[in-house]
Amino acid sequence: MTSQPLPGFRDFFPEEHASLRSIFSAWREASHRSGFREYEGPELESLELYTEKSGEEIVGQLYHFKDKGDREVALRPELTPTLARMVASRHRNYRKPIKWFSIPRLFRYERPQRGRHREHFQWNCDIVGEKGGVAEAELISTLCLGLSLLGLGPQDVVVKISDRGWWDAFLTHQGIEEGKKGEVLRILDKLEGAPQEEWQKKLGSLAEPVAQALTSKAIQSPGLNEVRQGVADLGYGNWCEVDLRVVRGLAYYTGVVFEVHDRAGKFRAVAGGGRYDHLLKKLGGEDLPATGFGMGDAVLSELLREKKLVRPVAARAEIFVVAETGERSLALQLAGMLRRAGHAVDYDPASGKWAKQLELAEARGARWALLVGREAAQGKLLVKELAARKQGQVSFRQDGGGEISLEWGVGDWAKVVA
Amino acid sequence: MTSQPLPGFRDFFPEEHASLRSIFSAWREASHRSGFREYEGPELESLELYTEKSGEEIVGQLYHFKDKGDREVALRPELTPTLARMVASRHRNYRKPIKWFSIPRLFRYERPQRGRHREHFQWNCDIVGEKGGVAEAELISTLCLGLSLLGLGPQDVVVKISDRGWWDAFLTHQGIEEGKKGEVLRILDKLEGAPQEEWQKKLGSLAEPVAQALTSKAIQSPGLNEVRQGVADLGYGNWCEVDLRVVRGLAYYTGVVFEVHDRAGKFRAVAGGGRYDHLLKKLGGEDLPATGFGMGDAVLSELLREKKLVRPVAARAEIFVVAETGERSLALQLAGMLRRAGHAVDYDPASGKWAKQLELAEARGARWALLVGREAAQGKLLVKELAARKQGQVSFRQDGGGEISLEWGVGDWAKVVA
Repeated sequence: MTSQPLPGFRDFFPEEHASLRSIFSAWREASHRSGFREYEGPELESLELYTEKSGEEIVGQLYHFKDKGDREVALRPELTPTLARMVASRHRNYRKPIKWFSIPRLFRYERPQRGRHREHFQWNCDIVGEKGGVAEAELISTLCLGLSLLGLGPQDVVVKISDRGWWDAFLTHQGIEEGKKGEVLRILDKLEGAPQEEWQKKLGSLAEPVAQALTSKAIQSPGLNEVRQGVADLGYGNWCEVDLRVVRGLAYYTGVVFEVHDRAGKFRAVAGGGRYDHLLKKLGGEDLPATGFGMGDAVLSELLREKKLVRPVAARAEIFVVAETGERSLALQLAGMLRRAGHAVDYDPASGKWAKQLELAEARGARWALLVGREAAQGKLLVKELAARKQGQVSFRQDGGGEISLEWGVGDWAKVVA
Repeated sequence: MTSQPLPGFRDFFPEEHASLRSIFSAWREASHRSGFREYEGPELESLELYTEKSGEEIVGQLYHFKDKGDREVALRPELTPTLARMVASRHRNYRKPIKWFSIPRLFRYERPQRGRHREHFQWNCDIVGEKGGVAEAELISTLCLGLSLLGLGPQDVVVKISDRGWWDAFLTHQGIEEGKKGEVLRILDKLEGAPQEEWQKKLGSLAEPVAQALTSKAIQSPGLNEVRQGVADLGYGNWCEVDLRVVRGLAYYTGVVFEVHDRAGKFRAVAGGGRYDHLLKKLGGEDLPATGFGMGDAVLSELLREKKLVRPVAARAEIFVVAETGERSLALQLAGMLRRAGHAVDYDPASGKWAKQLELAEARGARWALLVGREAAQGKLLVKELAARKQGQVSFRQDGGGEISLEWGVGDWAKVVA
C-alpha cells in the first residue's frame, strides 16, 4: 500500500498544520473584529444544489456519486449554495444585514498544479440583506485586515476592483443585446494572458472601445465610487485600484466585483468576490441582496512562503518533567497538577537516564525542565531553563489528600534560576 | 429546492457553531497542555486503505465511489488508517513517542439517530512508539482534562477500563483456541443490553466463568495495573473503574481498551480507544506500538446539553459605531482604526436614524456604542455603555496624514461613562 495521499490531496504533518492554523487564526481574527459570525454546513450536499446555480457544466469538475439511498450527491465545490440554502431556511431569525463567515473545506476534480489542489480550505465572508456599496467596502477591508495579520501589506498585494454594472451600461451603449453580453464578458474574463490579436478578433468591432476603456484612468461608476470611498475610510484605500479586466467569469455576479493579486503578478488570484444580488432567489431562496468573497489557502500559502512570512504557531511543551527511576509517580503527579493549572507539560514515558530525558526535552522545544530526583524526599525539585543553561531549586509540598503544590508559580521560575 | 441538508447531515448556524467551537477549543487546549501536536489528513482516501484495516464488511458503511480518474475512493470513516499512512511515510523525522492529535470530520452511511449522524467531528489523540501503559494513562488523563475544561467531572462520566490481554489469557485458560477467541470477544462486545439467556446460550460452557469474571471486584493484569497507577498519578483515578465488559468490537485492539460513558448510562459511549500494537504494520507501515482514542462531537453535545453545560463562546461586537447622516465617513475611519487596534467593531451599513442604529447595536450584543454626531466637528464623540445605560464623552484628533486617534483607549471607557 502506498504511503501517499491521492493525487491533488495533502497531508498536513504537524509543521505544515501549524502554518495552516496560523492562516486560520488570522482569518478568524479579522472576521471577528469586523463583526462576522462563524457558520458551517455539510460537506456533502445534493448534486442539484450545484447544478441549479452553475448549470450542468459544473458536474465535470465535481466529486459526485449516488449514495446508498440512491441520492445524487456531491462534495461541495464552494459554500455559497449552502449559504443560500441556510439563509432560505432561517433568515427571519436574523437581523439584516447578516454578516457570516466560514472556513470550509472544498473539493474540485481538477488537474492538480501549483497553488491548485483537489481539496482546499477557503475563507468565505458574506453580507446578506444590504444593497449599498458599504457592504463590499466592509468585505474588502476585512480581507485586507486578514492579510495584514499575516504580515502582508499593499506593497505585496493589490485589490483590483471592477464593476459588472459599468460593463453592462458600456455594452448597452455599444449596442450589444442583453442576451449577447454574457459572451462578451466571458471573452473579457480570459483577456489576461491571451494574445492581443486573438481577443481583438473575437471582440470584432468592440475591440477598439474595449481597449480604450481598459486603459482609461478615469473610469467611474456609482457602484465603484461608493465602494472605493468606504474602503478608503476604513483605511485600505492604498491597497486598491480599479481594473476593469476583472469581470469574474461566473454569470451570477451583478455589481462590483474584485480580486486580490500579488503585486508582482506571479500567482493566480489570492481571493475573489463581488455582488450576487439575484443568486439567493435563483437557488430557491429569498430575494435578498448579497455580496461575498472567497480566499483559498493554497495560493495564499505560496505567497506567504515567497515573502518569508510563514510563521507557524509551534505547539511546544512549556515544561518537561524529568524523573529519576523510582520518582516516576511523583513526576506524573506534578505533570497532572501543572496541566490542570493551564501549562503545556510533557515527559518521557520511557523514563530512562536523565541525559536521555533531557535530550527529548530539548527536542520537544521545552523552555523549562523540572527534575524530580533524590532531593524530592526533602521536598526539593531542580528547575532548569534549558536554552539559557541556568538552574535553581523550588520546594513542593503535598497536603493530606495528596494534592501537590509548588513554592513558586511557573511565572516566577525565571527569578529562581541563576 | 429543499432548504434542508441531506438526511443525517447538519447545518451549523452561528449559535450552533459557537457550541461546536467551544468543544473544539477544549479539545485543542487539553491536547496542547498534554504535549500533543495537531495534524490533519485528506478527507478522501483510497478505498483500499479502509478495507485493508477492517475487511470488506466496512464497505457497507462507507461513502465510496469511483472518481473521474477511475480510482476507488472513500470519504474517511475514521482517521487511524490515515495516521498509519502518514506515520509510515515520515516517522523517521520524529522522535518517539510521537504524540499527535487531530479533529477530523468523518463520514459513515448509517441510519441517522440521536447522537449518531452521517457526518461528525471526532477528537483523536494517538501515541506511537511507546509500549508502556503510561501511554494509555496519558491518553485517558488528556481526555479527562478535555472533558473537565467543558465542565464535566467524575460525577458525570466514568472511564471504563478493560484489557484485551486479560481476556486473551482468560480464554486460553478456558481452553479456547486462538482462532475462536475473536468470536467470543464479539459476543462479549454485545453483552450490554442483550438478554441474559441469549448470551448464556451463545457462550455455552463459557457462560459461567465469564459471568464470574464480570462480577469479580479483584480483576488485575499487568497492563491494567500500570495504566491505573499512571491515571491515578496524573490525577484522574476517581474518573476510572475496571469494567471487563468493555472489549471494543474491533479486531485490531491488542491490550488495554477503554470507553467513556455518562454515569447514568443514558447515552452511547462518549469516547473509546485502546492499544493497537500491530495495526500500523498491517496497514503496510512500520511495526510500531500504538495506542489512541476517539471522541465524537455528537454524543458529547447531547451530554453537555443534558448537564446544561453548553457554553458557546458568543462572537459579539465589542463596539458599535453609530453615525449621524453626513458623518458616515468619520464613523468608518473610527471603525477601521479600532479594528486594526484589535477590537471587534460593527456598524449599521444602512445608516438610518440613531434609534434604529442603536437597536441593531443591542441586537448585535455590543457592549459599547460610539456615537458620531454634530459634536464631531469639535472633536468630540459620545460613548454609551449600552446595558448599563451610562454615557460619557471622549475627544479624538486626526493627524496630518488623516490617521485618527482617541483621547481614551477602549480599556478606559468604563472610567469615562457615568
